[in-house]
Amino acid sequence: MKACVFDGRKVRVDPDYPEPVPAAGEVLVRVDLAGVCRTDFEIVKGYMRFRGVLGHEFVGTALGGRHAGRRVVGAINCPCGRCDLCLAGLGNHCPGRTVLGIQGRDGAFAERLVLPEANLFPVPDAVPDRQAVFAEPLAAAIQVTRQVDLKAGRRILVLGDGRLGQLVARVLEAEGLSPKVIGRSTAKLRLLDACGIATARADAAKPSHDTDVVVECTGSATGLAMALGFVRPRGTVVLKSTVADTAGLNLAPVVVDEVTIIGSRCGPMDAAVAALERGAVGVEPLISAEYPLDEAPAALAAAAEPEAIKVLIRP
Amino acid sequence: MKACVFDGRKVRVDPDYPEPVPAAGEVLVRVDLAGVCRTDFEIVKGYMRFRGVLGHEFVGTALGGRHAGRRVVGAINCPCGRCDLCLAGLGNHCPGRTVLGIQGRDGAFAERLVLPEANLFPVPDAVPDRQAVFAEPLAAAIQVTRQVDLKAGRRILVLGDGRLGQLVARVLEAEGLSPKVIGRSTAKLRLLDACGIATARADAAKPSHDTDVVVECTGSATGLAMALGFVRPRGTVVLKSTVADTAGLNLAPVVVDEVTIIGSRCGPMDAAVAALERGAVGVEPLISAEYPLDEAPAALAAAAEPEAIKVLIRP
Repeated sequence: MKACVFDGRKVRVDPDYPEPVPAAGEVLVRVDLAGVCRTDFEIVKGYMRFRGVLGHEFVGTALGGRHAGRRVVGAINCPCGRCDLCLAGLGNHCPGRTVLGIQGRDGAFAERLVLPEANLFPVPDAVPDRQAVFAEPLAAAIQVTRQVDLKAGRRILVLGDGRLGQLVARVLEAEGLSPKVIGRSTAKLRLLDACGIATARADAAKPSHDTDVVVECTGSATGLAMALGFVRPRGTVVLKSTVADTAGLNLAPVVVDEVTIIGSRCGPMDAAVAALERGAVGVEPLISAEYPLDEAPAALAAAAEPEAIKVLIRP
Repeated sequence: MKACVFDGRKVRVDPDYPEPVPAAGEVLVRVDLAGVCRTDFEIVKGYMRFRGVLGHEFVGTALGGRHAGRRVVGAINCPCGRCDLCLAGLGNHCPGRTVLGIQGRDGAFAERLVLPEANLFPVPDAVPDRQAVFAEPLAAAIQVTRQVDLKAGRRILVLGDGRLGQLVARVLEAEGLSPKVIGRSTAKLRLLDACGIATARADAAKPSHDTDVVVECTGSATGLAMALGFVRPRGTVVLKSTVADTAGLNLAPVVVDEVTIIGSRCGPMDAAVAALERGAVGVEPLISAEYPLDEAPAALAAAAEPEAIKVLIRP
C-alpha cells in the first residue's frame, strides 16, 4: 500500500509499503482522511525516535470487527491491558503501550492502518469526515476540562492561537466559560474573534499574575515561562506543549507563588465525537489545506508554516 | 542593637544597627534563638535582592502587645490586608507583602525584630526554645499535607535529607504515612533510620516511575528532573526548592505522563506549634551547632557545609 514513512532521516511516500496485518483483537481500517499535528514535525526532528508510518489523527472505515463498514475514529494509545497502570484504569499511561504513528505502531498517513477494536469509536452520520478528523486533537482539548476545576467566572487564559489553542478555546467557550486567547497571528486570532472569544496579541499582553487558569498551548520552549507570568498565586497552569528543552527557565515563582502545573495529553474520544455531533465546537474553519497522500511531505511542510492551522492528508 | 546584616556584598555583624521601631499593629520582639535556612545563603548569593538584617526563623519574647512577656514564634509574611489576594485569604501571596529577613523587612539575626501582632504565635511552656525555633520550617513541611491528598498506603518519596527533607519526612511519618527518603549523606539518612523512616542513597536509587507523590526538597537545580524520574504517570511532585535556573530540564515527561507539579512554600504556624507541643515531630536531633550572634557569619558558613543540618544563632 501507499504510505508516508519516516526512516529516521527523511520523510517520503513509499508506494509499496507492507500491508498492515491485524493481530488478535485488532481491526484493519481504511484511512479516509488524516490530519497533521505538531507531534508529527517533532518526530521528524527526532522526538520519540519513531520510525515508520507517520500520523495519528484520522477518520476511516473499519474493514472488519463489530464496526465493519462503519466510519470510525481512533484512540491512539494501545495499552497492554495487564500491567498495574492498565488495571488501575490508566491504560493511556501503560509503559508497554504502542501509540499510533508515535511509538512502535505504524500511523495514519497511509491507505490502511490497524488498531485494537477497543480503540475505535463509530462516527455518527451527521459528522462529515472533515469534522471527524478533528476527534483526536479535540479529545486532547477536552482533557483540560477533565483535569482542572473550571468554574464559570474564573479568569482563564489560553496561550497560543494554533491548532491546539484554537480547539481548547472553543471547548472552554462551549462549556460556558469565557476564555481569552493570547496569540501571535492576526488571522488566527480573527478566527477566534468570529466565535466571540476574547483575544489579545502576545506582543501587547503584559504579565499580569492575575489569571486563575492558564492553558499553555504555545508549542514553544518559552510557553511555560510565559504562563508563569500570567498565572496568579495558587493558580493553575495546564501544560500542553511537549517541550524537551527549557534553557534558562526560572521555576522559583512556582514555589514562591505555590502554582500548580498539570501536564495534559490525550483525552476522551467519546466526548469528542459527541461534541462534534452536537455541533458544540466548530472545527472546519481551522482547515488550512488538504493534500493527497502522494504529497504528504508537502503537507507536513505546509503545516509547519506560521499561518497554517490544520492541514489534512487524503489517501 | 547588634545585628547580622547583608549589604548586598558581604555579611557582617553590626554592633550598632538602628533599633527597630514597631508601626501601628506591630510588636517589638526580643530574639532568644534563631535558625539558619538555605534561603539565607541564597539571599547572600543575590536572591530577592534583599538588603538588611538576615534571618526569618526564630523564637523570642514579645516586648509589647497582647502577648507581652510571653515567648512567641512568628509567621514571616506580612500582607497589606487590603488587596484582592488578602481579602481572598491568600495574604501569604499579597503582592505588597514584606517578608521577615527576605523582602523589605529586617530579620531575626538580631537582638530585636518587629512583626505585626497578628503574625505572632505564643509558645507553650512545654516547648523549649531549641524546639520552638523550628516552628517556621516545620510549618513549611506541614504545608505539604495541606496541598496534596496523601492517603495512607500511597507511595511517597521525599528527595533530600537536609533541613527541609528531614522535617517533611518526620511530618509525614507522624501523619501515619510511610515516606521513604532519598539522600546523599550517610549521617543524615541515619537520623531518619533512627525515626523508623525508610531511606535510600541517591547514588543507588534508580528512576522507578512508580511513586504516587514525590516531595522535592533537594535545594538543587536538578531536583525536579530527579523527581520526574520517580513519579508515576498522573502522580504528583511537590516542589519545595526555589531554583532559579533549570538548564536543560526536559519537561516533556510532565505532559506525556500528565504529572502534576505543586509549588509549596510557607505553612500554618499554629499547626507547627501544636505538633511541637504534642511531641509529634522530633526536631532537636537536627541541631548541628549553635553560635553566638557575634559569630553569625561563621554560623552561615557552618550551615552551608554538606554535613550540617540546622545551625542556630543565639543573640
